Amino acid sequence: MKLWEKGITVDEAIEKFTVGKDRELDVYLAPFDILGSMAHVTMLESVGLIEKAELPVLLDALKKLYKKAVDGEFKIEQDVEDVHSQVEFLLTRDLGDLGKKIHSGRSRNDQVLLDLKLFIRESIREVVAETGQLIDTLLSKSEQHKDVLMPGYTHLQVAMPSSFGLWFGAYAESLTDDLELLSSAFKIANQNPLGSAAGYGSSFPLNRQMTTDLLGFNNMNYNVVYAQMGRGKVEKIVSFALANIAATLSKLAYDVCLFNSQNFSFVSLPPEFTTGSSIMPHKKNPDVFELIRGKCNKIQGIPQQIALTINNLPSGYFRDLQVVKEIFLPMFGELDDCLSIANLALGKLKVNENILDDARYDYLFSVEEVNKLVLQGIPFREAYKQVAADIEAGSFRPDKSVNHTHEGSIGNLCIGKIAEKKEGIVRNYHFEKMDDAIRNLLA
Amino acid sequence: MKLWEKGITVDEAIEKFTVGKDRELDVYLAPFDILGSMAHVTMLESVGLIEKAELPVLLDALKKLYKKAVDGEFKIEQDVEDVHSQVEFLLTRDLGDLGKKIHSGRSRNDQVLLDLKLFIRESIREVVAETGQLIDTLLSKSEQHKDVLMPGYTHLQVAMPSSFGLWFGAYAESLTDDLELLSSAFKIANQNPLGSAAGYGSSFPLNRQMTTDLLGFNNMNYNVVYAQMGRGKVEKIVSFALANIAATLSKLAYDVCLFNSQNFSFVSLPPEFTTGSSIMPHKKNPDVFELIRGKCNKIQGIPQQIALTINNLPSGYFRDLQVVKEIFLPMFGELDDCLSIANLALGKLKVNENILDDARYDYLFSVEEVNKLVLQGIPFREAYKQVAADIEAGSFRPDKSVNHTHEGSIGNLCIGKIAEKKEGIVRNYHFEKMDDAIRNLLA
Amino acid sequence: MKLWEKGITVDEAIEKFTVGKDRELDVYLAPFDILGSMAHVTMLESVGLIEKAELPVLLDALKKLYKKAVDGEFKIEQDVEDVHSQVEFLLTRDLGDLGKKIHSGRSRNDQVLLDLKLFIRESIREVVAETGQLIDTLLSKSEQHKDVLMPGYTHLQVAMPSSFGLWFGAYAESLTDDLELLSSAFKIANQNPLGSAAGYGSSFPLNRQMTTDLLGFNNMNYNVVYAQMGRGKVEKIVSFALANIAATLSKLAYDVCLFNSQNFSFVSLPPEFTTGSSIMPHKKNPDVFELIRGKCNKIQGIPQQIALTINNLPSGYFRDLQVVKEIFLPMFGELDDCLSIANLALGKLKVNENILDDARYDYLFSVEEVNKLVLQGIPFREAYKQVAADIEAGSFRPDKSVNHTHEGSIGNLCIGKIAEKKEGIVRNYHFEKMDDAIRNLLA
Amino acid sequence: MKLWEKGITVDEAIEKFTVGKDRELDVYLAPFDILGSMAHVTMLESVGLIEKAELPVLLDALKKLYKKAVDGEFKIEQDVEDVHSQVEFLLTRDLGDLGKKIHSGRSRNDQVLLDLKLFIRESIREVVAETGQLIDTLLSKSEQHKDVLMPGYTHLQVAMPSSFGLWFGAYAESLTDDLELLSSAFKIANQNPLGSAAGYGSSFPLNRQMTTDLLGFNNMNYNVVYAQMGRGKVEKIVSFALANIAATLSKLAYDVCLFNSQNFSFVSLPPEFTTGSSIMPHKKNPDVFELIRGKCNKIQGIPQQIALTINNLPSGYFRDLQVVKEIFLPMFGELDDCLSIANLALGKLKVNENILDDARYDYLFSVEEVNKLVLQGIPFREAYKQVAADIEAGSFRPDKSVNHTHEGSIGNLCIGKIAEKKEGIVRNYHFEKMDDAIRNLLA
Repeated sequence: MKLWEKGITVDEAIEKFTVGKDRELDVYLAPFDILGSMAHVTMLESVGLIEKAELPVLLDALKKLYKKAVDGEFKIEQDVEDVHSQVEFLLTRDLGDLGKKIHSGRSRNDQVLLDLKLFIRESIREVVAETGQLIDTLLSKSEQHKDVLMPGYTHLQVAMPSSFGLWFGAYAESLTDDLELLSSAFKIANQNPLGSAAGYGSSFPLNRQMTTDLLGFNNMNYNVVYAQMGRGKVEKIVSFALANIAATLSKLAYDVCLFNSQNFSFVSLPPEFTTGSSIMPHKKNPDVFELIRGKCNKIQGIPQQIALTINNLPSGYFRDLQVVKEIFLPMFGELDDCLSIANLALGKLKVNENILDDARYDYLFSVEEVNKLVLQGIPFREAYKQVAADIEAGSFRPDKSVNHTHEGSIGNLCIGKIAEKKEGIVRNYHFEKMDDAIRNLLA
Repeated sequence: MKLWEKGITVDEAIEKFTVGKDRELDVYLAPFDILGSMAHVTMLESVGLIEKAELPVLLDALKKLYKKAVDGEFKIEQDVEDVHSQVEFLLTRDLGDLGKKIHSGRSRNDQVLLDLKLFIRESIREVVAETGQLIDTLLSKSEQHKDVLMPGYTHLQVAMPSSFGLWFGAYAESLTDDLELLSSAFKIANQNPLGSAAGYGSSFPLNRQMTTDLLGFNNMNYNVVYAQMGRGKVEKIVSFALANIAATLSKLAYDVCLFNSQNFSFVSLPPEFTTGSSIMPHKKNPDVFELIRGKCNKIQGIPQQIALTINNLPSGYFRDLQVVKEIFLPMFGELDDCLSIANLALGKLKVNENILDDARYDYLFSVEEVNKLVLQGIPFREAYKQVAADIEAGSFRPDKSVNHTHEGSIGNLCIGKIAEKKEGIVRNYHFEKMDDAIRNLLA
Repeated sequence: MKLWEKGITVDEAIEKFTVGKDRELDVYLAPFDILGSMAHVTMLESVGLIEKAELPVLLDALKKLYKKAVDGEFKIEQDVEDVHSQVEFLLTRDLGDLGKKIHSGRSRNDQVLLDLKLFIRESIREVVAETGQLIDTLLSKSEQHKDVLMPGYTHLQVAMPSSFGLWFGAYAESLTDDLELLSSAFKIANQNPLGSAAGYGSSFPLNRQMTTDLLGFNNMNYNVVYAQMGRGKVEKIVSFALANIAATLSKLAYDVCLFNSQNFSFVSLPPEFTTGSSIMPHKKNPDVFELIRGKCNKIQGIPQQIALTINNLPSGYFRDLQVVKEIFLPMFGELDDCLSIANLALGKLKVNENILDDARYDYLFSVEEVNKLVLQGIPFREAYKQVAADIEAGSFRPDKSVNHTHEGSIGNLCIGKIAEKKEGIVRNYHFEKMDDAIRNLLA
Repeated sequence: MKLWEKGITVDEAIEKFTVGKDRELDVYLAPFDILGSMAHVTMLESVGLIEKAELPVLLDALKKLYKKAVDGEFKIEQDVEDVHSQVEFLLTRDLGDLGKKIHSGRSRNDQVLLDLKLFIRESIREVVAETGQLIDTLLSKSEQHKDVLMPGYTHLQVAMPSSFGLWFGAYAESLTDDLELLSSAFKIANQNPLGSAAGYGSSFPLNRQMTTDLLGFNNMNYNVVYAQMGRGKVEKIVSFALANIAATLSKLAYDVCLFNSQNFSFVSLPPEFTTGSSIMPHKKNPDVFELIRGKCNKIQGIPQQIALTINNLPSGYFRDLQVVKEIFLPMFGELDDCLSIANLALGKLKVNENILDDARYDYLFSVEEVNKLVLQGIPFREAYKQVAADIEAGSFRPDKSVNHTHEGSIGNLCIGKIAEKKEGIVRNYHFEKMDDAIRNLLA
């Protein structure tokens, strides 16, 4: 069944090639397509394009479909082209010609734009929740191990004293910045494209503010040409914001893999979190963190892949955008998996408490010695040279106590401040606005 | 002169290779390095690491250097390694050992972090201003040509009526979303890293809140390990936000080049904005828009280039980050050039007012006909089939009047709403906070 | 079943996450894994690690599995980790302890390396065949339409006369260069890694030259550390060579979509090769070429995605490489689809024979006029100015006959030379060598 | 001075923007532009477009300019647009109207294509030479340290014994594969585009085979539309082949930085090859290898940047290609610097000979123990379990002698075979062909 059936039979190979993975991918979009249709028909009735009595019939049928979709029972049938056609087909089967009316005043172009935006909003909310939990885990680990010192490196050379409090806390704060970036991507996505039709608007007297409100959007993509132009662009922006979280996770995973090496032995994983080798009987490998890293690095390649696909296309819709769905839609699930497995594995990560007993880390304290001399009145550059000479002569003996007091240092981790930063950013998403609207729509 | 001189002479080839383009690139950072030093010494005095009487002497000397830097008279000398060394060297030449005190309680690591963030803040402000002007030009062009119809395309096939009002306005609204994304990048960059030293903090009793306030930062990178981890990450995020503006510009330039082709002839440029061919005497080429497109596409490759450079490095500083400066610092100037030349050239762009007289565009109005039938009570799918049959039979005759009324459509461009969106986003940067702080510091 | 079972039960969530898509992806590798095992056990017997009588038993069982695999009947069972384990498990079920012997002297690391290389060789052969067919189609179209002129553009401005002969031929020759690049990727892949074990070789007296010969490899990855280091690197190189073909296809598709627009009308597709719109009854969209373009652009993003995954990893195996399989293995099928559908659709492409009758293309002939004047003895720069003046004055009248004779020009397309170039490159792959070896192995 | 001067003055800002960095970048191309002109005028004379007596005058003047260019004395003057105009301008100043004749039968489009290809050929030759030297250094280091064992890692976990012989040799062999890929890029570039003019050929009776021979090209880009289409494409292919060398260097540098950390202490650099810290007096940082890594990673981003610039452009020349010069031309010098500095620094790298005395590396030998049991007749899986049990019980005591004998293993490094591979690949470039031709041209 095609919405544009005109009596010409499309070549079978072309048909297969053009439908591609749409039937499979559109399942991601099904519940959102139905919600969008509910808002759309409500608006159509308000401007007289649907009869008063028809509205409750349509809404009722759509609600039933919605339930199916969230229960995972919605399927796109073999000879149906996409989710939009499937919904219309099901409605028409049940309600006759009334079902066909849901397509008035829109095109599949603004319909899929709307579906994508509703999907993105909801999916971002899950990512924010997963990321928030990981931040909490990291901050609690930071608090728990705040007194355990570890070497700090620059150039991967032993540099200055650090602590597990600092190390865990750093990734927590990094993720707060990632949530800040994601909040802009969310705002950009959270604007109503419905009513832009094929990208040039409609001669029907649509009320776009009404659907904006019904769906709890934050704003509208006013200009209909821009609403269409947002396709691909929004996905690229959102994918970069997700890639940014992935980059932080990847770096954390890199550190864990490095620190878990026998050459560091700073952290370890319980055996049931490691894997073995088919030929080396002694191996307990941190595959889980290597795979978090690998998957997150793969995710980081996605914004560029979308850019290559949409770049240098003039304005107006192109079918190339279908390929973006293939690249983009599975990203959220992949990132969510990495976030939740990282959360699980970090919870089990054991920390070595006696790292600094090893003499190879003695030079960590050279700056402390320099600073002590400075506080005794010796100019910094002189103190530096004096300690350098001791080191060169082999006579350097460190005092391993650390007394750092300023904001964000070993002795003053500002865990509460970081938690506050996170809370402020999350509040600023105003997820409640979209929730309230959807709840009303389904009521 | 090296801040870490210990009596060993570095191999000359190694020296040349490691200094690289630093002397040239650090000139971008000079005024910001000096501002940062002013805030730092003010704080050092407040915690007793500098004498009360020494402070005005240092501030006075730094203000003079600052003036030199903004006047373009600050140079990094041949045997001096970087901007930080040059500033300390100049101070020490004038003030003796007092000059050396400015390095107490910090490292070049947090110094360059600070310089970069102050540079980014200021450079973003210029980008916002340039982008804002381009939005204004586009909106005024949209208003000016709101009644000139043009074909709207999907699949580059003649689709539905559009207008120059829509076309110009679309790019204006696109840029507002770009400013929204950039505002998150700005917030992420606008946090104080000073005090993180080499990435592990300091044993001096620094007051980081004080430098945060003195420099007008919005917040602090609390965790010192994270402050260091932000290097490269912040540049990547900012570069993506800039690349996003570049993507919009590139698309606009693509449209202009296409519409300027003899096969469209929708727009034209005055001869003094075109270039010729060495063999074809009739050519008037839109090189300026091709180069905007090319340069903006080059800019779009930068986030990925930074990602490749910083990805899979564990936590802690690495010298690789120097390469990021090379990639990142010139971006702003390149984008600003594209924005201002686009603004100039769009101002001169002439619009063809009689495009739709050409019969090849008649089918643009097929949906209008369908919708008219729908409004007469014929179900959409029936109306669609009827018009399709007329077209197939060659009997389709369009009525070329367009009456679109909903938000964002040809007849209701919502130019004011788009301008409002822009204003709201720009206000939210709170540039005045950083301006006030810098003004006070220099007072 | 795990080859490294040591009595510890891996956490279930970790197990699921680490196995990932391996069971699904390894099916690509199954026949190659079995072939590799046949060569391996043959060699093991020759160095005394398997009894003389055991070899035929093992080979026989492996041949049966191979048949299953090429018939698509080989599955990786739910509790089995990967293809290597599944093969060993099936052999052991049938042959008892003898089955376990196939793992002597190797690791899963060199086993998967080998599988990948055998898979790549075979898959490249298919790509070369598909590409060769497309070249043939393009050359035959070039010959068929060699006398049909079309406008040649520079800057998308009407520039000089071109022809469909030139246009089709250009893409044929482009693909020959792509086959040249792919031949280097093939050579790099076509080297034997078997015997490198976990990347550090084996204390068994393996005969690596023997497996190199048995499997028809062109050469050996001698150094065992390098053999391992090739993982990811080879995939990146091959993916770039494939991306290069994709880039040519994408550009061809771009041209078709542009030339199919009503603003050009140079080419058209039969209705059964186009798709329609859900709201615009007149639309016949070239979706098939848009999707070729989109899919090929997606493919172009893959080398960078692999680079992000493997970059900045030190030497030695990492589990991250599993993610590369996910990115890389499906590429071949996706490209093959695009090649064969392009071949099909180009075969149906109709060419408009009277394009140049339109006066908008008159200036195409300005250089011809200049050259005529030059051949009459007027210096080029003078002739150029004279024709430019005629054009400016509106008095330019072209003679539309074209007489280009040099190599590769409209009148001398060198189709045979391009076909020869292709043949030479394809011969240079020496696919027969690998075919002969595999045939012998299976005999 | 513009070759296309028609009496219209281009807007000054537009002029500045469009010329961009051309004056600076074209200096890379100057000697090649002149060589190309020598071949071109020789051919023009042979087909009667230049008088017999004029040829030696032109060749003589061009030879003088060539000498200037290779001596670095060729400059593009302030009001001259590019290298092609500058050469014509200088000739015309000296020879009057005769100078203008060199432009007959070509366009700046095929001229710059030719310049780029001649530049690429020559620059690749330098890269091959530098890479060849690095391979030699690595192989000699491999031979020198063939008996020094080091840990081999998988998952960065202590895995099996390796050696410095293996480690150095691995990078040598990796670079031979990189040279193989580069040889395909060289072949693709080494084809003559001259005569394609603006991408649509010429009505002059050019002899393209003659210029192909005169310039020592391996072949011709026959189809003139394809010759133009090669612009950007060839640069992308060459840049990927260079990026591939960069990737190998980057990985080598990563290993050095890791192994130079106090947590490994496998290698060290003499003090004059390290740099210090401004606050930590004990630091001796391996900046030189970090910068090799960083610069090489930046280089790896270039193919994608070119792809973003040229992707989705239809056939025919666009000014966007000028931006590709900016991205591409400096690549060679940057890579050459990294290669030569790596060569220098590796020559000084010291190797720690007693690494394996440390007990943390004892488990390296677990597979050796398993294999010994296998050779005693115990099935592999049993032997594996037995050694695993010893390790778990803490009773594992390794015999640290290693006896690996197969090709490419610790005891049989195949250094000669790797050197042979390299020689074979380098011979296959046939640089002598281009050298002979250029020598004849300049004779």
